Amino acid sequence: MDDSTVSAYMSQSYLPVSIADSVACVKKSLIEHLDGEQIPTFLFVVDQDNYLNGILSVKSLLAADEGLHVSDIMRHNYFSVAPEQSRHDVYDLINHSGLDMIPVVQFGKLMGVLRPQDIAELIEDENTLDAQLQGATTPLEEPYLSTSPVTLWRKRVVWLLMLFVAEAYTGTVLKAFEEQLEAAISLAFFIPLLIGTGGNSGTQITSTLVRAMALGEVSLRNVGAVLKKEVSTSFLVAITIGAAALIRAWILGVGAEVTIVVSLTIIAITMWSAIVSSIIPMVLKKLKVDPAVVSAPFIATFIDGTGLIIYFEIAKLVMTEFA
Amino acid sequence: MDDSTVSAYMSQSYLPVSIADSVACVKKSLIEHLDGEQIPTFLFVVDQDNYLNGILSVKSLLAADEGLHVSDIMRHNYFSVAPEQSRHDVYDLINHSGLDMIPVVQFGKLMGVLRPQDIAELIEDENTLDAQLQGATTPLEEPYLSTSPVTLWRKRVVWLLMLFVAEAYTGTVLKAFEEQLEAAISLAFFIPLLIGTGGNSGTQITSTLVRAMALGEVSLRNVGAVLKKEVSTSFLVAITIGAAALIRAWILGVGAEVTIVVSLTIIAITMWSAIVSSIIPMVLKKLKVDPAVVSAPFIATFIDGTGLIIYFEIAKLVMTEFA
Repeated sequence: MDDSTVSAYMSQSYLPVSIADSVACVKKSLIEHLDGEQIPTFLFVVDQDNYLNGILSVKSLLAADEGLHVSDIMRHNYFSVAPEQSRHDVYDLINHSGLDMIPVVQFGKLMGVLRPQDIAELIEDENTLDAQLQGATTPLEEPYLSTSPVTLWRKRVVWLLMLFVAEAYTGTVLKAFEEQLEAAISLAFFIPLLIGTGGNSGTQITSTLVRAMALGEVSLRNVGAVLKKEVSTSFLVAITIGAAALIRAWILGVGAEVTIVVSLTIIAITMWSAIVSSIIPMVLKKLKVDPAVVSAPFIATFIDGTGLIIYFEIAKLVMTEFA
Repeated sequence: MDDSTVSAYMSQSYLPVSIADSVACVKKSLIEHLDGEQIPTFLFVVDQDNYLNGILSVKSLLAADEGLHVSDIMRHNYFSVAPEQSRHDVYDLINHSGLDMIPVVQFGKLMGVLRPQDIAELIEDENTLDAQLQGATTPLEEPYLSTSPVTLWRKRVVWLLMLFVAEAYTGTVLKAFEEQLEAAISLAFFIPLLIGTGGNSGTQITSTLVRAMALGEVSLRNVGAVLKKEVSTSFLVAITIGAAALIRAWILGVGAEVTIVVSLTIIAITMWSAIVSSIIPMVLKKLKVDPAVVSAPFIATFIDGTGLIIYFEIAKLVMTEFA
């Protein structure tokens, strides 16, 4: 997609200077060609065929003696990107790099430049894509109000069907425990609460870890430290939510056994959710899959079904009628 | 919290100039005081008590005749913020404004300045807060690996308990339909799938609308247009997912009646979810509650319980054993 390469973001608004120009002449030309208030940090030194020879710091230019020439103060070392590079790849390189003026070079020729506003737009588009994909939809190309229902349907239905198929196995799990459900129908009352809590506690961990990975604080080699921290934290969380579940089941009046089963299950699901949600984002990152995008809904779906297995296995252990 | 006001982001790295200075002298002083490659767009004109008299465009400075004085080229109209303003308020004012150098003024005195990097940091912190709150957790103050389990527990448990309490009413709903569940236990098999799909389709709509509202494309006065578009889209989505549900229920072998109930329910829940997810974010925005933060998990929770009511009411209508 053209839209997601550097070429869609680069601008032709840069001041090309020649290696033989004098400092005085470049200064004059810079002031004449400024539009807006922003002053570029770098100018680009090109030859007559537009090959990039180097870059010229505007700060050095302003400080330089008027008698000098571009060749005396230009730099030969600089960071550049190529027009066909994907937005996603460039995002990782330039986000947090502090670079605000990046030449776009192909086969040695200057094709354009990423100005601060171009870089900001690129970073924002990539962040928007991530946010929309986490909401299990695809960003719109047009303003919302001019997008047709058929287009919206196309953007949404594929994700929804994928999640539907992923979630469908919970039906198989529940059917497998039909006998237990029939014997103690009140077990069904807690299904939404148990899987909802498992999903929410997993989402908390995933969103914290995705952030920590984006900041470079955590990677797969810290998996031991992360697991230890998350399992300890989840133990505290599990005890708290387990107590809340005890109160809730008691109020609903489902009997001592189901109350115990529900409380034990929420403890077990919270711990299980912590292990799954700690490991999967780091493994995805290692596999070069963006963990921000796929983690939350799919991890929640995975915890839904496995959580139900935990629920009914605990019920089989605790409840005398299943003994 | 000090952390979330302008004063936590402002810098003292600005060049104060005096109204009586000459252009030549300011130019010289600017070049001497630059650190890094970035050239500020504006300098600040203050008197001896640090009262802000105006701002000076560096572009005008560079273009100005050396014989002129600051008073000849300074501007009296500028946008400023106060140190005690909240990050959230300022975010709305400066994001997308294109301003890259903003004076921070209190009782007329210049207290500091927001440089481009300060503005970027402020915007990123606010976006991070939003992203973390959507993951139902609170951002960490320290790096992840040095945050203790007790701190993580504190950041997470309040949200988790709030969502637990919100979700707990699903138990009451299911208990109210205990009779129907006992008569047709296979209805229970589809509970996670139905509420999961309702939540997912709602999240898709919410994330699209939150984005459209952030871009200013949509507000509460467009509620009619939004509802019309979302109900049309959801009709297409509902038919598609309804067909998938028909296939799924058929494979699970739950009989014709339950198959029909499940398919009709997923159509009804998808439509219901569209109405709820279209209206709530716009109402929240109108009430000055940030819709990005509260929408997704709470709307999903609301759809869970109301979706279950829809499910069992449809079952009561369709199934001959409940007639």
